[in-house]
Amino acid sequence: MAHAPFEGVLVPALTPYADDLSVDTGRFVDHCKWLLDQGANGLAVFGTTSEANSLTVGEKLDLLDALTDAGVPAAKLMPGTGACAIGDAVTLTRRAVEFGCGGVLMLPPFYYKGVSDDGLFAAFSEVIERTGSDGLKVYLYHIPPVSQVPIALELIERLLKAYPDTVVGLKDSSGDWSNTDAVLTAFPGFGVFAGSEVFLLDTLRGGGAGCITATGNVNPAGIREVYENWRTGRADALQARITEVRTAIQAYAAIPSMKRMIEEATGMSGWSRMRPPLVALDDAIWAKFDADMKAIDFALDMGQATVDA
Amino acid sequence: MAHAPFEGVLVPALTPYADDLSVDTGRFVDHCKWLLDQGANGLAVFGTTSEANSLTVGEKLDLLDALTDAGVPAAKLMPGTGACAIGDAVTLTRRAVEFGCGGVLMLPPFYYKGVSDDGLFAAFSEVIERTGSDGLKVYLYHIPPVSQVPIALELIERLLKAYPDTVVGLKDSSGDWSNTDAVLTAFPGFGVFAGSEVFLLDTLRGGGAGCITATGNVNPAGIREVYENWRTGRADALQARITEVRTAIQAYAAIPSMKRMIEEATGMSGWSRMRPPLVALDDAIWAKFDADMKAIDFALDMGQATVDA
Repeated sequence: MAHAPFEGVLVPALTPYADDLSVDTGRFVDHCKWLLDQGANGLAVFGTTSEANSLTVGEKLDLLDALTDAGVPAAKLMPGTGACAIGDAVTLTRRAVEFGCGGVLMLPPFYYKGVSDDGLFAAFSEVIERTGSDGLKVYLYHIPPVSQVPIALELIERLLKAYPDTVVGLKDSSGDWSNTDAVLTAFPGFGVFAGSEVFLLDTLRGGGAGCITATGNVNPAGIREVYENWRTGRADALQARITEVRTAIQAYAAIPSMKRMIEEATGMSGWSRMRPPLVALDDAIWAKFDADMKAIDFALDMGQATVDA
Repeated sequence: MAHAPFEGVLVPALTPYADDLSVDTGRFVDHCKWLLDQGANGLAVFGTTSEANSLTVGEKLDLLDALTDAGVPAAKLMPGTGACAIGDAVTLTRRAVEFGCGGVLMLPPFYYKGVSDDGLFAAFSEVIERTGSDGLKVYLYHIPPVSQVPIALELIERLLKAYPDTVVGLKDSSGDWSNTDAVLTAFPGFGVFAGSEVFLLDTLRGGGAGCITATGNVNPAGIREVYENWRTGRADALQARITEVRTAIQAYAAIPSMKRMIEEATGMSGWSRMRPPLVALDDAIWAKFDADMKAIDFALDMGQATVDA
């Protein structure tokens, strides 16, 4: 099995929009830089939390350009490149490899449901073969609550056998620890990331690589601290705190809640915008959310880092 | 409510591929022409049966070009233009309007599940407003077994109120007659198409417009005959026969089964190819399928219409 290029805490960076719902590239780049400054080990841009499937392929290519132009090291990027159409997945994956991205996070095609492992194997295989590069490192993206297209252990095994130098890991966003545990047990050395920091310590203790987590957008330093200290006596206490924060946030719609947190923390009007079909938090729910955050003594302090110049 | 531009039997035309899985445009155009020759009242190109979400936006735009270049009347076309990204849906919808397509069939954005009606309303609204044309006629595409994002009665009502001259109908692929019946009852005059010919007669008797049906790809004349005779004494007997054929076909994976039927009927090697994640029928299943068709005395005769020149 190939050495996996990522470890630690990766963040699926939120995507801010201008008032016409176009991507606010400047704010996006600033947010990505802030996350790295706060200790994120990498950025899983174009994830579910990034509203990536609400962006066109062209918009994603432009954002990759903007990030690298701004000096964000490509090795720290794990863009989401999976798509329903193989052609789109190949376009995104090829560009990621050209930029030297550390890896890509690949959704299965997600329109048809109940598809066979033969069909999913063929889909990943087509993208890998057409990309045709030794530089490609693929993390499989298992997120059945959203995609409704799971990536089963048998499929992972087949892909690992066919592409041992390319398929290097998996993000498990099933929310089901027994599945993460089964993957860790079945494939020692595979670059397994939990899809939530709630499972960070368990994942690391089970031989996994870390977590790729939505709430890393607002608590990157706290989650990174668990990763830095996971072999120490402080690990469980630190884990308990990030679990508390995560649990409080995910009681709400996490994406609009975190966007609103950033808007409030920075004073940057419009950061809370969402692209349909997702919707911004209404004020009443925000008030409840904000009260919940205060109750657990969690505040987002973004300093000057993301304030518009 | 605006007059709906389509009635009768519409077919979501299958999409054939060359051996490198690129779209075989020539065969696609020939198949579309054959369907119209056989009496299809229109073509819902880029539907679920067309593997439309396995095509890139660029591939779909090229196929629209090819169809109109080949003399297929745009008024007979109801292309699928819904997408997860609003930008993609707008690109496709605008082009469809520019070509003078009779209407478009619009999936909701289908990546996120459990989204609110506010979010879905905003998604459809953005596409309609950005397309910005009186020529746009939208059919909503309700196919919860696949999209997992239903279009509820309340949402239809809201869209009809906001866009009475634009939102003109719905395709109901829920497979649930009670839903179709509820839509027909709630919105008299709305252009309701059943998603299967099994419900064609019931839909017409309930005031609906017809059906848009996968199996129209192999039984267009039979289904059209029901539409032509629905007010006559022969209607129920004719309906029973198309229901028998549909039931036999949908006991299998309908898309690869029908592609294989066309390959066998025309002798055109490779017609049965599928894009991943869907897979071609294997020979053992084809043999069973073929025996089932013989048992009900159903044979596909495509004449010379689609034989390569």
